[in-house]
Amino acid sequence: MTAFSIDNQKNLMLFAGRSHPELAEQVAKELDVDITPQTAREFANGEIFVRFEESVRGSDAFVLQSFPAPLNQWLMEQLIMIDALKRGSAKRITAVLPFYPYARQDKKHRGREPISARLVADLLKTAGADRIISVDLHTDQIQGFFDGPVDHMHALVQLSDYIRTNYPSDNLAVVSPDAGRVKVAEKWSDALGGTPLAFIHKTRDPLVPNQVKSNRVVGDVEGRTCVLIDDMIDTGGTIAGAVKVLKEAGAGDVIIAATHGVLSDPAAERLANCGAREVVITNTLPISEDKKFPTLTVLSIAPLLARTIREVFENGSVTGLFNGNA
Amino acid sequence: MTAFSIDNQKNLMLFAGRSHPELAEQVAKELDVDITPQTAREFANGEIFVRFEESVRGSDAFVLQSFPAPLNQWLMEQLIMIDALKRGSAKRITAVLPFYPYARQDKKHRGREPISARLVADLLKTAGADRIISVDLHTDQIQGFFDGPVDHMHALVQLSDYIRTNYPSDNLAVVSPDAGRVKVAEKWSDALGGTPLAFIHKTRDPLVPNQVKSNRVVGDVEGRTCVLIDDMIDTGGTIAGAVKVLKEAGAGDVIIAATHGVLSDPAAERLANCGAREVVITNTLPISEDKKFPTLTVLSIAPLLARTIREVFENGSVTGLFNGNA
Amino acid sequence: MTAFSIDNQKNLMLFAGRSHPELAEQVAKELDVDITPQTAREFANGEIFVRFEESVRGSDAFVLQSFPAPLNQWLMEQLIMIDALKRGSAKRITAVLPFYPYARQDKKHRGREPISARLVADLLKTAGADRIISVDLHTDQIQGFFDGPVDHMHALVQLSDYIRTNYPSDNLAVVSPDAGRVKVAEKWSDALGGTPLAFIHKTRDPLVPNQVKSNRVVGDVEGRTCVLIDDMIDTGGTIAGAVKVLKEAGAGDVIIAATHGVLSDPAAERLANCGAREVVITNTLPISEDKKFPTLTVLSIAPLLARTIREVFENGSVTGLFNGNA
Amino acid sequence: MTAFSIDNQKNLMLFAGRSHPELAEQVAKELDVDITPQTAREFANGEIFVRFEESVRGSDAFVLQSFPAPLNQWLMEQLIMIDALKRGSAKRITAVLPFYPYARQDKKHRGREPISARLVADLLKTAGADRIISVDLHTDQIQGFFDGPVDHMHALVQLSDYIRTNYPSDNLAVVSPDAGRVKVAEKWSDALGGTPLAFIHKTRDPLVPNQVKSNRVVGDVEGRTCVLIDDMIDTGGTIAGAVKVLKEAGAGDVIIAATHGVLSDPAAERLANCGAREVVITNTLPISEDKKFPTLTVLSIAPLLARTIREVFENGSVTGLFNGNA
Amino acid sequence: MTAFSIDNQKNLMLFAGRSHPELAEQVAKELDVDITPQTAREFANGEIFVRFEESVRGSDAFVLQSFPAPLNQWLMEQLIMIDALKRGSAKRITAVLPFYPYARQDKKHRGREPISARLVADLLKTAGADRIISVDLHTDQIQGFFDGPVDHMHALVQLSDYIRTNYPSDNLAVVSPDAGRVKVAEKWSDALGGTPLAFIHKTRDPLVPNQVKSNRVVGDVEGRTCVLIDDMIDTGGTIAGAVKVLKEAGAGDVIIAATHGVLSDPAAERLANCGAREVVITNTLPISEDKKFPTLTVLSIAPLLARTIREVFENGSVTGLFNGNA
Amino acid sequence: MTAFSIDNQKNLMLFAGRSHPELAEQVAKELDVDITPQTAREFANGEIFVRFEESVRGSDAFVLQSFPAPLNQWLMEQLIMIDALKRGSAKRITAVLPFYPYARQDKKHRGREPISARLVADLLKTAGADRIISVDLHTDQIQGFFDGPVDHMHALVQLSDYIRTNYPSDNLAVVSPDAGRVKVAEKWSDALGGTPLAFIHKTRDPLVPNQVKSNRVVGDVEGRTCVLIDDMIDTGGTIAGAVKVLKEAGAGDVIIAATHGVLSDPAAERLANCGAREVVITNTLPISEDKKFPTLTVLSIAPLLARTIREVFENGSVTGLFNGNA
Repeated sequence: MTAFSIDNQKNLMLFAGRSHPELAEQVAKELDVDITPQTAREFANGEIFVRFEESVRGSDAFVLQSFPAPLNQWLMEQLIMIDALKRGSAKRITAVLPFYPYARQDKKHRGREPISARLVADLLKTAGADRIISVDLHTDQIQGFFDGPVDHMHALVQLSDYIRTNYPSDNLAVVSPDAGRVKVAEKWSDALGGTPLAFIHKTRDPLVPNQVKSNRVVGDVEGRTCVLIDDMIDTGGTIAGAVKVLKEAGAGDVIIAATHGVLSDPAAERLANCGAREVVITNTLPISEDKKFPTLTVLSIAPLLARTIREVFENGSVTGLFNGNA
Repeated sequence: MTAFSIDNQKNLMLFAGRSHPELAEQVAKELDVDITPQTAREFANGEIFVRFEESVRGSDAFVLQSFPAPLNQWLMEQLIMIDALKRGSAKRITAVLPFYPYARQDKKHRGREPISARLVADLLKTAGADRIISVDLHTDQIQGFFDGPVDHMHALVQLSDYIRTNYPSDNLAVVSPDAGRVKVAEKWSDALGGTPLAFIHKTRDPLVPNQVKSNRVVGDVEGRTCVLIDDMIDTGGTIAGAVKVLKEAGAGDVIIAATHGVLSDPAAERLANCGAREVVITNTLPISEDKKFPTLTVLSIAPLLARTIREVFENGSVTGLFNGNA
Repeated sequence: MTAFSIDNQKNLMLFAGRSHPELAEQVAKELDVDITPQTAREFANGEIFVRFEESVRGSDAFVLQSFPAPLNQWLMEQLIMIDALKRGSAKRITAVLPFYPYARQDKKHRGREPISARLVADLLKTAGADRIISVDLHTDQIQGFFDGPVDHMHALVQLSDYIRTNYPSDNLAVVSPDAGRVKVAEKWSDALGGTPLAFIHKTRDPLVPNQVKSNRVVGDVEGRTCVLIDDMIDTGGTIAGAVKVLKEAGAGDVIIAATHGVLSDPAAERLANCGAREVVITNTLPISEDKKFPTLTVLSIAPLLARTIREVFENGSVTGLFNGNA
Repeated sequence: MTAFSIDNQKNLMLFAGRSHPELAEQVAKELDVDITPQTAREFANGEIFVRFEESVRGSDAFVLQSFPAPLNQWLMEQLIMIDALKRGSAKRITAVLPFYPYARQDKKHRGREPISARLVADLLKTAGADRIISVDLHTDQIQGFFDGPVDHMHALVQLSDYIRTNYPSDNLAVVSPDAGRVKVAEKWSDALGGTPLAFIHKTRDPLVPNQVKSNRVVGDVEGRTCVLIDDMIDTGGTIAGAVKVLKEAGAGDVIIAATHGVLSDPAAERLANCGAREVVITNTLPISEDKKFPTLTVLSIAPLLARTIREVFENGSVTGLFNGNA
Repeated sequence: MTAFSIDNQKNLMLFAGRSHPELAEQVAKELDVDITPQTAREFANGEIFVRFEESVRGSDAFVLQSFPAPLNQWLMEQLIMIDALKRGSAKRITAVLPFYPYARQDKKHRGREPISARLVADLLKTAGADRIISVDLHTDQIQGFFDGPVDHMHALVQLSDYIRTNYPSDNLAVVSPDAGRVKVAEKWSDALGGTPLAFIHKTRDPLVPNQVKSNRVVGDVEGRTCVLIDDMIDTGGTIAGAVKVLKEAGAGDVIIAATHGVLSDPAAERLANCGAREVVITNTLPISEDKKFPTLTVLSIAPLLARTIREVFENGSVTGLFNGNA
Repeated sequence: MTAFSIDNQKNLMLFAGRSHPELAEQVAKELDVDITPQTAREFANGEIFVRFEESVRGSDAFVLQSFPAPLNQWLMEQLIMIDALKRGSAKRITAVLPFYPYARQDKKHRGREPISARLVADLLKTAGADRIISVDLHTDQIQGFFDGPVDHMHALVQLSDYIRTNYPSDNLAVVSPDAGRVKVAEKWSDALGGTPLAFIHKTRDPLVPNQVKSNRVVGDVEGRTCVLIDDMIDTGGTIAGAVKVLKEAGAGDVIIAATHGVLSDPAAERLANCGAREVVITNTLPISEDKKFPTLTVLSIAPLLARTIREVFENGSVTGLFNGNA
């Protein structure tokens, strides 16, 4: 006979960059697999080297990387890992980015700017990624930057369940810290049972470019417990300012809820002292001990990631998982 | 001598699909060129045929197409024109889409949906387009869907100048018809000198999927002349509903302003009877006579397109033109 | 252990555009699968929306679309369906086009024309199609326009079997309606057991471009039952004219046989009244009731498509199936 | 000032492979340029090495290669020359192939065959060719195999002018040697003023695959001077057989006319002895001395190539040149 | 139910070009499969035609080709085979090149040269190869020329085992014939247990470009049995010259060891008479009878190729196989 | 008239990343242009933002970046700059990398490794680079990793001129610090007039993987002034060890010469104390003050880069410039 045949098997293998070992361990545990052992290090001049210690041929590879500082290094590490998987004959490569880097540069705000979020998608594709899994992209349109399947998951169910469980729902308001997130606030409002909405309106002086003249609350927050929501908290300036404006407008307690805790300095200090009763985030990014403060609550994103990975591997639907758009 | 040399010249040539001849003529007149003569027709079964009647070799070709119904036919016509230009050795091909089709499908709202706005960008690229010029994309991120330069122009200056010239500015409010356009409303507010903002908040019943329970104005509109803004008006249902909600909330006059007048039935009737004092749009799409009504004002987008084309051809900057992001 | 493994399965899923539901149902029945349920509709301005109602992850997807008028709409629908499958993680996507649109524009007849048949192949590839199945391409070379496998099936066996069964074979002649299809007529001649050949020769006046001066039969048809063959019948002008020329040349009965019944107006009327004894076509395109006439016979192409799809899915050979070139 | 500017010039440079130096010299002379000097040789194991002896930066490069035996070597040489031009920063690279290799494998005749003509187009593209110039492609559809401009020129005017000048036109017939070229014969018929048409019909025995049972003339040739036309003559078997069949059918003189004189053994002998009065070809391929015979006439294709190159360089139209489809 | 499912199987199929049937047979025997039967031949003008005689759908195809003269023909044959497999729906295509052609042109030695080794990688990719297996690439960096997995195997273990078995190891020296292969010589030295190293240093006269002034041994070879190593022996000039220089420097026996026996004329004569005691090569290239001489030993590379193919098919690791870098 | 025309001009614009402002200024001064002003900064989480302050439309853009630590950040900055240029309609983009990052990972040393040098080439291409200029690539083959023109310049002339001017040439030896650079040492030997060659041979213990047993000088260095050459000096361990081995072998003065001074800690200390008389490098990488030591000499690479850029812009030949391979 000319050909000989064997049964075809699919093998899930999990790979993890070095940016967030705790999350990688949690995902591995949820999936009940080990992270594939690898050598990963920097040369003295900063060049990254990666080598896997087991054969990756034919595997359905999931490559997890988070993006705390130094973010560009972790991006390059993920690209190099993907290149090594491609050249090592992995069958399918899924880049798992709980936090998508450069998501805020998703358009040219003015001329002669890059669109770095599209560039990141193209770099992942070039390195060899076939698919992407991510959580709460800064804008949904980033899904369309990648030429292939993107499983876009949301932490909204997890975060809003936490709020509902811990706070009485009869006097809530959902507040967007700026005009660009009112749509997301509306989804929160639905998830919390139809609470009122508000947002902070920034007025700019047309004579002084790029300078905000004043912040004003649009919508009714007086006496209400405000859930101030955002996709990410970076230095915390905007969100802390929003708490202040809400308080001045007569709001009751303010709870901050966001998926991505970037928490660049001085975010921890600002958040701790801004007057918010609680700050709820997930661990899509590592939260170092020195950034933790008493009113901070961190929910684990690992169960959502692990379930998504498993459904992708087994060709199940992820649409029903925590409202994913996939 | 081995080589022989000649001076290199750049030739601007303007090509126009058949969807909006009036706009094409206006642009040609502004540019002081003729539209390149062509044969374009349908075969009996609907297949489109295009042939240019002059050599297009080495030209810097600008291919203008608008997208009224039947939109898919006009898209195919533009793709075929670009293919003919590519195979006819045009040097550079810029697709000019005053209205970008399928812009609303710019993400997967739920799983197993297409991202048709990205698909359109890829189809244009595949046919041979090197660059895109468009006006007021539904979301700015669509710029990032195209792998090449996108000159994204805005009609805001033109529209807001019209409002400022025709209405007293001391009692205005800018209103977004839904939570997703509050950011654009904020830009309008800046352009009009810092007017108050409001938006219509739709409450959904969590027990009945996809059904809106009620609409509510968030922000203060009582007694104010409201400028209700949007990027496009399709059937006019949302915008006419918004006028009603504003009126109920005590608003004064309502002026509707939008870039793209899609005006699918029964938009004209709805807009004429919704109680708005004036509806201001541009002619990025053709407005047929039967869709015109007394309170409709149509501004020409041709000057903006022509100036952009000229700057692109002459390598000038378009960033300063009407606030383009290019 | 690092990896975990599961058995790999292949799942055939059938998807159908809205252009020809009858054929889709026939194919589904032959395959003994259901068409995957989907939502598909136009927005008011003609933009198409598609969403699948079941997970398509990992599926071996076959996307059937026919191309009656409005042809560009159905093409865009198929591209959008393919995009949704790609982004929904289908494993392999086969576009099934019983009638390949724009097949007649398979070359530049003169300068500055498009090659739309190549463009269609590129658009399908860009959207995400891995493979194509089609029937009786206008020219065989269109196979080479697609960068991937094309299973090119033929209806010749089915059509010629019908002729052989219904007409005595001893006095037949096969006639090509023009000089370009004589090669195909020769294959018919072989299939019918070596009948004589003829074709209609059009003489052009060199002084009047593109005008046919006269039609003449080349070959001997006198007293013979002529099988006048073509790949498609569009408006029927050429083929009805050929019947007339054949009759004038002394032919006996004329039977028209073609794979694709485009039947643009006034084809039905022309064919009914042209003097042909019978017109035999297949249902690669839908034949609406108002286009049917007494001497029209429509054979179903569904068995050929279904068998091809099954062989492709099961990695069988289709070369033996009805003379496919695959 | 930030930028500094210089005038942009275009430089035509002509490059020639080693397969047909005589034609290259003719083209260079017509263009009044020198062929760019180069080193080109084989290593002992057959690997080809090419290096240009002048800078090619910024040039508009035309790379001429013909394809006599050993054809694969000359194809590789042209690919390597194009690679060297790409890496040497030529601005635009046009592959000039007077005879397109592998043109006969332009489709899958049966399953599991290559489409080598498409492969050749893809190889040229991959190496770096931006454009193609060719003459009388085996089928017009090959234009569509290349993803870029193809200037497809025809020798018909030149060949038919020769016939008209040298033979009285009142008693001619144009004959296609097989059913597949009747369309081309029809164009010849028009070019010669509307002469009658005929073709040779091959009957196959359905019981014996691939075997021709008999050849028959379809059309009236008795007493006529027959112009037997083809795109290429390889071993001459078909064409010599056609002369015999024509003679048996009572034809008068037979003149053979074809663009490409492949003339593989024993073509020269066959053609010399087949009874044809004259054989007219062009020099798209080199005709070695031992293949020449008294009744052979070779017209130079160099003027057509040179005029096409010049028009391409100067962005003129080639559509009017000898009926080119470009 | 919407979908129907079957188990997925993998089928290994072996394909062989016509350049080295003996090696193909050896590999097939080691794998215990038959070479897939095919039709392969040249047309009279040198165009190659290939057709497989069994269905290749869904197969894991391995396409073996060696590259003796006429090398460009065999390259084109392999490309055409790959094209036919791609269009015949093979699932994965691995090009197996025991000797990688054009490997010596792996960089631009001077300006305006091609990088033909990269071109070959791109041509393979364009034709449809997903992966490459090769042995002892001229430089390791050629792995990086291919955009996909390259399994790069080494014959060092096999060759050095042969030396160790047949020669006493206590008085050996490893010698590189030029400065560029000292690194490889060092690997040999390690494999032989740490023998001394030497190389031949060519001095160039700066006043006479490209001319070698003298050859000198650097390193101590006096009285030692020298293993003179190289990746390939083409005409044998360099290697025979090296033997002479070694002998003049007082070396004892000289054994030549190389992976690839290109053996272009007059290599066999030179090697037979150069004074070397034995010449050991593998059969990555066919060694015709007239090139064999008494001191030539040819080891079979088939076991290494077969084991690599099997591991690739079964997703095993090849890293441990004979020191492969894969 | 249909088209209108203007003269075409070329504008050179120079862009510089922030990694090595001193070199950028030197290059700008040599070219007599200003560096295009830009905004470039990091967001708090490390994301880089770049915007050019002048129109870049139609420019011939040269983007200079060096790669000291943090190297991955500078790579991302260059990619983002290139993306912004592409989207801002630059006509041609040349990435200028005096030191090519990740050049040492130019092959898989063992299985399951990346080929990061190829990855870098692909990332540059994906971002939008049309061409690359680099200096002394770690291996010449890296030229072939980029799909486009690479101008590969060499500092050898500049460095060897310095040696010849400052040291008597009658007693020199050129020494490679390992077996892999002997070929480069041979070029140095030629450049210095034919000096003797030597290299350091590392013996590995076959029983202990990856461990060097001993270092030995191969070649005669006793009493000679040794020029110890390399392409780059990273931590300086190898090169300092080589000085020691040379001294033990009786060498006279040792001068170290290398193109790229990476000088990662503790290179400066090691080099200062290793016994070398002088260390000569260029400034392809910035040398901070704390890394300078008395015996260090830094030559500027700016004249070579500026002349290369000018020749590329003006389509001149760079082959003659300092022995560039372009």
